[in-house]
Amino acid sequence: MKRIVVASKNRNKIREISLALDSMGIEVLSLEQFDVPEAPETGDTFIENVYQKSYFYVKLIGLPVLSDDSGLVIDALEGAPGVYSSHFAGVGASDKDNIKRVITLLNNKKLKESGAAFKCFMMLTFPDLKGYWSQGELKGKVITKPRGAGGFGYDPIFIPVGDLRTLAEYTIDEKNRISHRGRALRKLVGILKGEADV
Amino acid sequence: MKRIVVASKNRNKIREISLALDSMGIEVLSLEQFDVPEAPETGDTFIENVYQKSYFYVKLIGLPVLSDDSGLVIDALEGAPGVYSSHFAGVGASDKDNIKRVITLLNNKKLKESGAAFKCFMMLTFPDLKGYWSQGELKGKVITKPRGAGGFGYDPIFIPVGDLRTLAEYTIDEKNRISHRGRALRKLVGILKGEADV
Repeated sequence: MKRIVVASKNRNKIREISLALDSMGIEVLSLEQFDVPEAPETGDTFIENVYQKSYFYVKLIGLPVLSDDSGLVIDALEGAPGVYSSHFAGVGASDKDNIKRVITLLNNKKLKESGAAFKCFMMLTFPDLKGYWSQGELKGKVITKPRGAGGFGYDPIFIPVGDLRTLAEYTIDEKNRISHRGRALRKLVGILKGEADV
Repeated sequence: MKRIVVASKNRNKIREISLALDSMGIEVLSLEQFDVPEAPETGDTFIENVYQKSYFYVKLIGLPVLSDDSGLVIDALEGAPGVYSSHFAGVGASDKDNIKRVITLLNNKKLKESGAAFKCFMMLTFPDLKGYWSQGELKGKVITKPRGAGGFGYDPIFIPVGDLRTLAEYTIDEKNRISHRGRALRKLVGILKGEADV
């Protein structure tokens, strides 16, 4: 059986990716199964961070590595929080802190909402430094009044385009179907299966 | 016949890529065949520049786009000139000017040589934002006394590992066989042909 390592210890993420690759006879391993330090993440773009992570683990482990980086890009904040999404309010900040900082910045601009998108960049890297990549996006808007108890991160202030509910008001299945990471993953699986049109 | 656009107007580059993809029934088009502006190139890493270029042209043209970015990375100069290789001595600088700047910086450090590598990052991008990528590298050293009349760019001061000649003393065929771009291209063709090991 073929094996890849997902550059993450998040069990939900590992499970989601396992499900997608299982039918191709690919076994998905977690970083938890290896005794490796944390990869640096110093890029100022998603793609740079993903490549940095991939390169770091593929050199250490010697197996193909699947990495992703994602975040929320808000129009009115010139693309912030972007690559800083997970620690926008500082190192160790909670989801609530991060959301609060976004709301404060929008309030400062006298805005109640702004166009926004969740973006995900995904890369499968082979030890000889080549691979596949994909980008997934979920467009919508952010609002300054959080709603909903599901999801995580910025979900309580993000409303997908064409809906009235925040992502935190979606079921997990509903969210997986449209999420930026779900979309990137399905594209990557497609290209792995030879579905690209060249 | 399938078609891709190479994000370049350099005829030598187009020819090299055409030769590699011809056997796969892929027709290679040049940017010269399209009336499009020049892509921005503002990243501070090769991968970011390649993605920026790919994204720009794939959105404008709607066909798969093959882009690359490459440069010389010098150990003693903390990776410079890197993404600034083509204009290290300023906008519009000649190869000679750029070489002179490298030599000056090495002289300032009282160095006669330094470890270095030519690096190339290559990406094939489909209009729905997914694709293939590869990285090619040629390791060696730079010296402060230029030699040879062939090649271009920093070739007269670059000596590939295991050799005594500078790249400017290679024939074109010899250079293509070992060059960073040649290596990246062969890897990309390999993965296009399904030769990756997952």
